[in-house]
Amino acid sequence: MSSDDRADPVRWAAGICYDGTGLAGWQTQPQGEGRPAAIQDRIEAALGAVAGAPIATRCAGRTDAGVHAVGQVIHFETRAERPESAWVRGTRAFLPEAIGLRWARPVPAAFDARRSARARTYCYVVYEGREPSPLWRHRAGYSRRPLDDGRLRAASRPFVGRHDFSAFRSSQCQAKTPIRTIERLDWHRDGPFVLMRITADGFLHHMVRSLVGTLIYAGDGRQPVDWPRAVLASRDRSRAAPTFAASGLYLLSVRYDPHFGLPAADTGDVTMTTLSGLA
Amino acid sequence: MSSDDRADPVRWAAGICYDGTGLAGWQTQPQGEGRPAAIQDRIEAALGAVAGAPIATRCAGRTDAGVHAVGQVIHFETRAERPESAWVRGTRAFLPEAIGLRWARPVPAAFDARRSARARTYCYVVYEGREPSPLWRHRAGYSRRPLDDGRLRAASRPFVGRHDFSAFRSSQCQAKTPIRTIERLDWHRDGPFVLMRITADGFLHHMVRSLVGTLIYAGDGRQPVDWPRAVLASRDRSRAAPTFAASGLYLLSVRYDPHFGLPAADTGDVTMTTLSGLA
Repeated sequence: MSSDDRADPVRWAAGICYDGTGLAGWQTQPQGEGRPAAIQDRIEAALGAVAGAPIATRCAGRTDAGVHAVGQVIHFETRAERPESAWVRGTRAFLPEAIGLRWARPVPAAFDARRSARARTYCYVVYEGREPSPLWRHRAGYSRRPLDDGRLRAASRPFVGRHDFSAFRSSQCQAKTPIRTIERLDWHRDGPFVLMRITADGFLHHMVRSLVGTLIYAGDGRQPVDWPRAVLASRDRSRAAPTFAASGLYLLSVRYDPHFGLPAADTGDVTMTTLSGLA
Repeated sequence: MSSDDRADPVRWAAGICYDGTGLAGWQTQPQGEGRPAAIQDRIEAALGAVAGAPIATRCAGRTDAGVHAVGQVIHFETRAERPESAWVRGTRAFLPEAIGLRWARPVPAAFDARRSARARTYCYVVYEGREPSPLWRHRAGYSRRPLDDGRLRAASRPFVGRHDFSAFRSSQCQAKTPIRTIERLDWHRDGPFVLMRITADGFLHHMVRSLVGTLIYAGDGRQPVDWPRAVLASRDRSRAAPTFAASGLYLLSVRYDPHFGLPAADTGDVTMTTLSGLA
């Protein structure tokens, strides 16, 4: 322990963003050598280098391989006394360019990035065009069929509220209950892009991408507008449409009680420029 | 020669787009093994596979490593008789995902993708923020200092017209004359992005990125608004600001005489969604 380190550990929260392309997702995968690095490992190594001691983190949303984040939130504890600027600029020096640490704040010991989260907001970007775009292959899902925003909105309406989302969870999902409450689900068109924004208390594994897949079937006319509602009611995974690509998914923000004093989560409309990494 | 191939070669034009990240630029580099692939090599290999015979191409704008294209144009000659759809879909099957062939059209033998081009339009995207964005590191240049669109526009005005651009050409530039005519140069803000659109009869090597670097010095207040004009007048490369990153540069479109019958080049405003790969 260096002379400037105190005896009692302090808990910090930090805001993280990343381009998930080519990374293994948030969490360390146990599949051994030669796998792409997990984001958690990279961040813990960088924070540990700044602290001069090992640091363990916990995040608000464990994103899958290829999924991006604009407003991921983590917490960690350390005895190292460093100013906010040292965490932000120091950590940056040890992180690859694909990962950024946007802010750091001391928080009460009761703060937990995962359990204290009141709501999480994801955005899904669909690129619509006659051919896939080389420029957006890592940053958007793709639909060859034209999408009707009105149909997407109408098909989405029954999903808002408290429901059993068993039809939209992967077989690997380890959540104790399939019940989640969707607070907001809207669609916005921006040129050739269609963007879904969804806010809920939490999400099952693959839930957003599976929802997008099913809503797109209604949005492009392959299924009636009320078909996604029937899939939801069935609670049967085999009735949902295929899960959409990880490349179009962005963890946009996480909401906490204001007394934790974290930077306010973005609540504006989602446009293509929202995905710039602004908190 | 297969039975469906005719004796007289036919000339084709084609529209190409690519994500230049990690590619060696348009042209084959003679630096030997282990270099990233040149885009020209990849396209000639794919066209050759469709034709069943070697194919050589020539492009409108030889982009550098890391530069992107939405509306690159090439021409090639072949004796292979294939419908337009075979060139488009067949070539796609042989191209990496980072490169797309958007359209193909038979053209008169007098058409030359480079020499017939009347004007080329490039876009440069600058991301402005307190920290670089991991999500835009391969798709935009970066400015930590706030940019004033009004200053950028005022500083750009003297560049429109016919000028000697010696101050904005790289030492490797092989053009016979440094005289070029800029037809249009405008700036547009889109959230945290500032986008420059520039149309000219042609560009010297590194000219757009060098212009951006110098105009940004006026736009962020490090230099007076009339300083870029003085750099232009000096014709002295050593007076220009550093060249901006390749990652923010996009070849947007190439204009030809209408009688060649090519798809119309995009002439609308540049926004972030323009960079989706739409022709």
